[in-house]
Amino acid sequence: MDKLAQQLSFILELDRLKAVQRQTRVKPDNGRQENSAEHSWHIALVAQVLQEYAEEPININRIIGMLLIHDIVEIDAGDMFAYAEQGSHKEQEQKELAAIDRIFGLLPEMQYHFYKNLWLEFEQAESADARFAKAMDRILPVMQNMADNGGTWARHGVTRSQALKRNEYLKVSAPKLWNYVVSQIDLCVANGWLKDE
Amino acid sequence: MDKLAQQLSFILELDRLKAVQRQTRVKPDNGRQENSAEHSWHIALVAQVLQEYAEEPININRIIGMLLIHDIVEIDAGDMFAYAEQGSHKEQEQKELAAIDRIFGLLPEMQYHFYKNLWLEFEQAESADARFAKAMDRILPVMQNMADNGGTWARHGVTRSQALKRNEYLKVSAPKLWNYVVSQIDLCVANGWLKDE
Ligand SMILES: [Ca+2]
Repeated sequence: MDKLAQQLSFILELDRLKAVQRQTRVKPDNGRQENSAEHSWHIALVAQVLQEYAEEPININRIIGMLLIHDIVEIDAGDMFAYAEQGSHKEQEQKELAAIDRIFGLLPEMQYHFYKNLWLEFEQAESADARFAKAMDRILPVMQNMADNGGTWARHGVTRSQALKRNEYLKVSAPKLWNYVVSQIDLCVANGWLKDE
Repeated sequence: MDKLAQQLSFILELDRLKAVQRQTRVKPDNGRQENSAEHSWHIALVAQVLQEYAEEPININRIIGMLLIHDIVEIDAGDMFAYAEQGSHKEQEQKELAAIDRIFGLLPEMQYHFYKNLWLEFEQAESADARFAKAMDRILPVMQNMADNGGTWARHGVTRSQALKRNEYLKVSAPKLWNYVVSQIDLCVANGWLKDE
């Protein structure tokens, strides 16, 4: 298969991420479940708009690249709810690694390696770029939950300490945003949308 | 209102693009209509994957930025079908300019200007970056239509010359992709999915 044909088959495969449902609801669209493709678009813009709050030196273009592809594995592996138990996270990891090879493997060799490495960097969260990307992926649901009477937090009985832990990347990566999130979580507890243990 | 509050209100406003429907169908999600948020995600990746075909010098990061925001005006103005009549396009332009000011106007002054200028550059299509971005916005529906028995072309009785004209940005911007699109359009005509006048 020639190079362009490989690239086009990858591009068509991406259509399937539009069918992967997340727990978050889209309030302006009658509260239907959000899909992972539109979510990826949203956080890419969140990162661009909030880049000035990064505490470490970052490359925003690499971060946008990470965020655009970070959920593509869900085409095969499905979305794992953030507050699911640890056991299921391990299994999910295996599925995601297989998905990387199948889906990015549709591309020519060089692009396959480029995207695989970018995805692994995001997952490992050991670079400043990856940490900021992760932080953005966390802060958006906070905002969406606040705008939706507690959203997934309220629906799934999430606790204050779980929500804080989930957003910890912000502490190092964007302290000003971390302070904002802590204040929102406090507000959520006060409203009864997050459990206080 | 402080700066962060302005940025957060813009970010929440973006949720509404997920409720703007386009003519294209999402085949892997039971053929439902595509929304403009997931479409924006898709073409940002299309541009990144196909960047090597650009004939002119381009900055792919600026192009991805354009594609991520190019449809945001539709939150107020709605999506205009590509093959609608000329008259309605003029009216649409007015609505989109007003939308720019309201939606990007939620952001702090500097970011408002940044996004407004990027959007205007895309619309005017006079820079190499904007031309390549436009070309990507055109080539994706070609692929989606081909994978869907002619898709919107077949459903709306679009003609061969209309489809060719719509994709003309590719001729200058990415000739190899233009050749591909012409071959696909020929195939579509042969299949009876595009009208041959
Ligand atoms: Ca478009």
